[in-house]
Amino acid sequence: MRTSLREIFEARSVAVVGASKDPSKAGHQVVRTLLTAGYAGRIYPVNPNETEILGLPCYRSITDIGGPLDLVVVGLPGRAAVTVMEEAEQRGDVKGVVVLSAGFAETGIPENVAAQERLAEIARRSGIRVFGPNCIGIMNPETKLVTGFHPGVRLIPGNIGYVTQSGALGGSLVTLALSQPKPLGFARFGHVGNMCDVSNVELMEDYGDDPKIKVILVYLEGVRDGREFMRAASRVTAKKPVLVLKVGRTAGGARATLSHTATLAGMDGVYEGAFRQCGVVRVHTMQDLIAGAKAISMLPPPRGNRVCILTEAGGMGVISTDEVESSGVLKLAPMSQETCEKLTALLPPMAMVCKPNGYVDTSAAATAQEFGEAMRLILSDPNVDMVVFNSIPPTFLSPMDVAQAIVPVVREFGKPVAACFTVNETVVEARRYLEENGIPTFDTPDGAVRALAVLTRAAFRTSHPLVDLPHTRHPILERAAAERRHLLEPEVLDFLADHGIPVLPHVLARSREEAQHAAAEMNGPVALKVVSPQILHKSDVGGVRLNLYGPETVGHEYDRLVNDVRRAVPGADVHGALVVPMALPGPECIIGVVRDPQFGPTVMFGTGGVLVEVFQDVSFRVAPFDKAVALDMIKETRGYLVLQGIRGEQPKDIASLAELLVQVSRLAAQYPQIREMDLNPVRVYERGYSILDARIVLDLG
Amino acid sequence: MRTSLREIFEARSVAVVGASKDPSKAGHQVVRTLLTAGYAGRIYPVNPNETEILGLPCYRSITDIGGPLDLVVVGLPGRAAVTVMEEAEQRGDVKGVVVLSAGFAETGIPENVAAQERLAEIARRSGIRVFGPNCIGIMNPETKLVTGFHPGVRLIPGNIGYVTQSGALGGSLVTLALSQPKPLGFARFGHVGNMCDVSNVELMEDYGDDPKIKVILVYLEGVRDGREFMRAASRVTAKKPVLVLKVGRTAGGARATLSHTATLAGMDGVYEGAFRQCGVVRVHTMQDLIAGAKAISMLPPPRGNRVCILTEAGGMGVISTDEVESSGVLKLAPMSQETCEKLTALLPPMAMVCKPNGYVDTSAAATAQEFGEAMRLILSDPNVDMVVFNSIPPTFLSPMDVAQAIVPVVREFGKPVAACFTVNETVVEARRYLEENGIPTFDTPDGAVRALAVLTRAAFRTSHPLVDLPHTRHPILERAAAERRHLLEPEVLDFLADHGIPVLPHVLARSREEAQHAAAEMNGPVALKVVSPQILHKSDVGGVRLNLYGPETVGHEYDRLVNDVRRAVPGADVHGALVVPMALPGPECIIGVVRDPQFGPTVMFGTGGVLVEVFQDVSFRVAPFDKAVALDMIKETRGYLVLQGIRGEQPKDIASLAELLVQVSRLAAQYPQIREMDLNPVRVYERGYSILDARIVLDLG
Repeated sequence: MRTSLREIFEARSVAVVGASKDPSKAGHQVVRTLLTAGYAGRIYPVNPNETEILGLPCYRSITDIGGPLDLVVVGLPGRAAVTVMEEAEQRGDVKGVVVLSAGFAETGIPENVAAQERLAEIARRSGIRVFGPNCIGIMNPETKLVTGFHPGVRLIPGNIGYVTQSGALGGSLVTLALSQPKPLGFARFGHVGNMCDVSNVELMEDYGDDPKIKVILVYLEGVRDGREFMRAASRVTAKKPVLVLKVGRTAGGARATLSHTATLAGMDGVYEGAFRQCGVVRVHTMQDLIAGAKAISMLPPPRGNRVCILTEAGGMGVISTDEVESSGVLKLAPMSQETCEKLTALLPPMAMVCKPNGYVDTSAAATAQEFGEAMRLILSDPNVDMVVFNSIPPTFLSPMDVAQAIVPVVREFGKPVAACFTVNETVVEARRYLEENGIPTFDTPDGAVRALAVLTRAAFRTSHPLVDLPHTRHPILERAAAERRHLLEPEVLDFLADHGIPVLPHVLARSREEAQHAAAEMNGPVALKVVSPQILHKSDVGGVRLNLYGPETVGHEYDRLVNDVRRAVPGADVHGALVVPMALPGPECIIGVVRDPQFGPTVMFGTGGVLVEVFQDVSFRVAPFDKAVALDMIKETRGYLVLQGIRGEQPKDIASLAELLVQVSRLAAQYPQIREMDLNPVRVYERGYSILDARIVLDLG
Repeated sequence: MRTSLREIFEARSVAVVGASKDPSKAGHQVVRTLLTAGYAGRIYPVNPNETEILGLPCYRSITDIGGPLDLVVVGLPGRAAVTVMEEAEQRGDVKGVVVLSAGFAETGIPENVAAQERLAEIARRSGIRVFGPNCIGIMNPETKLVTGFHPGVRLIPGNIGYVTQSGALGGSLVTLALSQPKPLGFARFGHVGNMCDVSNVELMEDYGDDPKIKVILVYLEGVRDGREFMRAASRVTAKKPVLVLKVGRTAGGARATLSHTATLAGMDGVYEGAFRQCGVVRVHTMQDLIAGAKAISMLPPPRGNRVCILTEAGGMGVISTDEVESSGVLKLAPMSQETCEKLTALLPPMAMVCKPNGYVDTSAAATAQEFGEAMRLILSDPNVDMVVFNSIPPTFLSPMDVAQAIVPVVREFGKPVAACFTVNETVVEARRYLEENGIPTFDTPDGAVRALAVLTRAAFRTSHPLVDLPHTRHPILERAAAERRHLLEPEVLDFLADHGIPVLPHVLARSREEAQHAAAEMNGPVALKVVSPQILHKSDVGGVRLNLYGPETVGHEYDRLVNDVRRAVPGADVHGALVVPMALPGPECIIGVVRDPQFGPTVMFGTGGVLVEVFQDVSFRVAPFDKAVALDMIKETRGYLVLQGIRGEQPKDIASLAELLVQVSRLAAQYPQIREMDLNPVRVYERGYSILDARIVLDLG
């Protein structure tokens, strides 16, 4: 039976194998750090060549240790870790092993890869949990347990759980949090290194059930199995917020990730979509991650997204307002007329009250008492969910007086309030006082708003569990695969129709006469599109004719089309031309399927017609998904404005478009043979849509 | 003769009118601040009711002061300032007056507005320069002159000149700068308040000639006269970098600005374009402003935009790389194979060298000496213009050892190097040491890269002087204005053609037969567009018919069009229909003219056809401008990709499009009667373009 990770974080005894008197050795640092921190359990240095280290008796090996042993930290280089694992298995009481040493699978050298596999094997067999190799392991500030060493980390208890894919960056996040006016501590820290046993996904799930943790911070460079990550994340986010700093956003960044770890960094748009789908809140900088964590750690969740900005200085207020408007999640609070009137009566004549609504500039003439009273009036308004309070070091007031005036008021209402006292020697004490009394403070007005935006996104997170559909077969796909070719357009249309997706009427004409006959039946202008297994990009070879009227034109153009294509692609097997009616004009979308190396079948939605590549107005979700997710995808694009109807146009049929996305996502999940699918363009109308072109590329192995 | 502002910054004596023993009075604070700071000149407290204040003899009025008097600070409330101004004029030796008190034009109360006008009048007459009213005035750390009081501001000399539209925000910027590991001081600080005499524009220009100032920082909420600002800014940026933090970016932000000062905040896109046009570098946060200023203040300008990232930890390296790629100005340095090979030989086996090129991850195993050597190899490479050096507090090295290893190497090469030691108690000393030795340090890897991006944008700024063209008249505009109507489409086309802008052939057909005849002459499909002074939006009333072939169709559609329009707009005076040939397909742009309240005639360029409003892919420049500016405008849009030719398309005629923008900008500047112009769409071809629709709206008063 595998030991739960929580038991390891709460280990009551630690052996440090490779403990040393030499301060430049890892084994020395670990023992010293445990001693300095005041670890609450027993520490057993292990080194066959010493009898005592840093005042503690030293053991020849872990098998020599008499008392119960929960955790072993291996500071010895190379494969000595395997021997230690074997000894731990022999003992029978060891719950976890942290292997600090590098030099395993990450080197790519076969014997090192094998050594790591050996560690994993013993872990599986014995139930002993292994962190690493190549990691700094875990920290638990409550018992002062620390298996690594990151200079400057103080073990201050808090309610954050860290999961990090980089020891260095994880440590930096912790020290950034500790540098806040009131040091922002943590409950757990875990760096899993090469993940021969415990993975970052398992660690995150463990934190999900840990009552000491209110918010989980994940530093991610990539995931190996995106679907596993999403399933775990959606279970965890159903319980508590997860904030992720995922790096490798750009092509260059992704390249650097690739060179840094064995993990492949996927397309960033797919990560973005996957995070939203499983309720994870993504931030883009270390500072926003810690600011957001601080807000969640200290504040209650807001009831809504309406923020009032209470500012002592106009410039700061405008910066806050800019950030609210561009946050994508917050809006200025529409306070009642009564609140605005009372504020006007309260504040000095130069104050700017409710211009615009939700914005209150007290002017520098306000007194501490007036700040407190203004805060009370604002928090009393049911249309206010949160407040950002901006203050410069007041000219005639001490910052502490202002802080003391607002603290009791804020406490009374239990609504989230964030404060910005700009960086200044004179506000250090007031900021600490505010934070000790539950009001997080920030260096800049925009930073305070971004923290509330993270708080709000976390409060209103929705998580959609990811399922796997059973794989299935379809005769059209089977036949094409057997013939080692991709689908012809009529086959794609038949395949879609077979799954209940409406397609345009279409006839495969094999001659001039068949084309004329089909066109006549369609009773309106038609398009001709060449059908040939050798031709994927029809337009490029003259294989498309649009907007044809009358039998003469249709016949003439059919002949020209076949000629043009034969000349452009000499060996092409031309089956004929697909005759379809010209579609009515309407906004154009693209719906695509890709098979992501980490996330598997993934659906893209985009707008902008032929300009989709230029404006990159696209959103991704991992397949399959339901209609709520599909609607999110559509709303995420700027093109949503067009679909809602701009410039007096009627709104388009977004519901049926969402239904199409759901259907496509199911096809993507059910048919692993489909490597790529493009429905492009899809024209959307007031009722329904038309798929103007459709393409399916098979995975032919 | 007006006194130069520099003389005022270097005032050798200051009288403080309204000096007081009461610590809650401004007059007390100013005297105390001057004394505490150790002002190098003479201080004269003025208060008829006291004989001594803070140990200094007190005067009844400034006329009682015997010695020469350079500067007067007025701390008295209300219109007492006018009396002081009169006394100052009487003395004859006073160079400047700073009026701290509020309660003037910003209140909108007529008698207060008049008092401010009186101050301005005496200033004009006497040559005495006035800062304010409603301001905190000036600071000069060299002589410890300070006329206001911002708690926490230490007067540390440096090479930054601050111009601020808000005393509070300006003070916060100064304290943010002072909070750097090595406090970042300044040479001048000026807050101009209501600007009854000295304006922020004049202050900026004065800094341009001030040898003590290397970089100018401007906090802006809006400008009154955009063209004056641009002219001044382009003169200043020809000499030294100007960084601007302009707030009020979003609609909401702009509203808040409106309520804060009497200044109207213009459309943000216009500001963005105007700043680029006059060589001003805009940043969007207080932190980026100070980080950018620090980089410029401490570093030489880079020779190019190629950055090498030298990192001790992968995660930080990837964050830096992400930021380089998304900076829009920097790129990873393409180092020589020789450099890459030497780095590989130097660094530990786990290091990741030149994967991707320009990226070097030393791994945590590198020694201080290896960091120094790696830095030397990188800086020696002529393909490297700058380096970002990322370090976590190293596990076994002291941060100071690392700092000491790189300082002498960096000094040798004189290329810009920025360092990120993440926030941590253990790196404080090393960061200070680096900064004292010319290497700016930053809290996060992305912050370091953003600072170098500002440094690079500042180094490669180009400034385009703004001219005014003489206003002129044109018979087409005169006639329409006389008839109190906007231009008809044929008039617009004739007007454009008259100014050398190519337009499509067009015939105004007044009957079915004329339409048929014109269409026959055009020898291809045509469009019909209604011509009527009552109809501006032709499509909405059925006034456009596209893609018509043959006399029968043309005649039929002409009749239908006239009927439809008459039915839709019963009273409309229908002149007939414009017959134009159908244009070939091609990427579509929009070129527009607006008259901005601050910047006057302004040209917009945009792409995306009908989706221009959705994707907002537009750029602005203030008219008139030359071809270099027009090309910048085009390159600023994402649509530039399309114009360059995507998906195998031939590149479009960007040069002729730029020429068109120049021509339009000249029309906008020459004809103030034109309130709005829209050329939309303009289709761009491999050679030339077609203006498919053109509209001119006149200012009819």
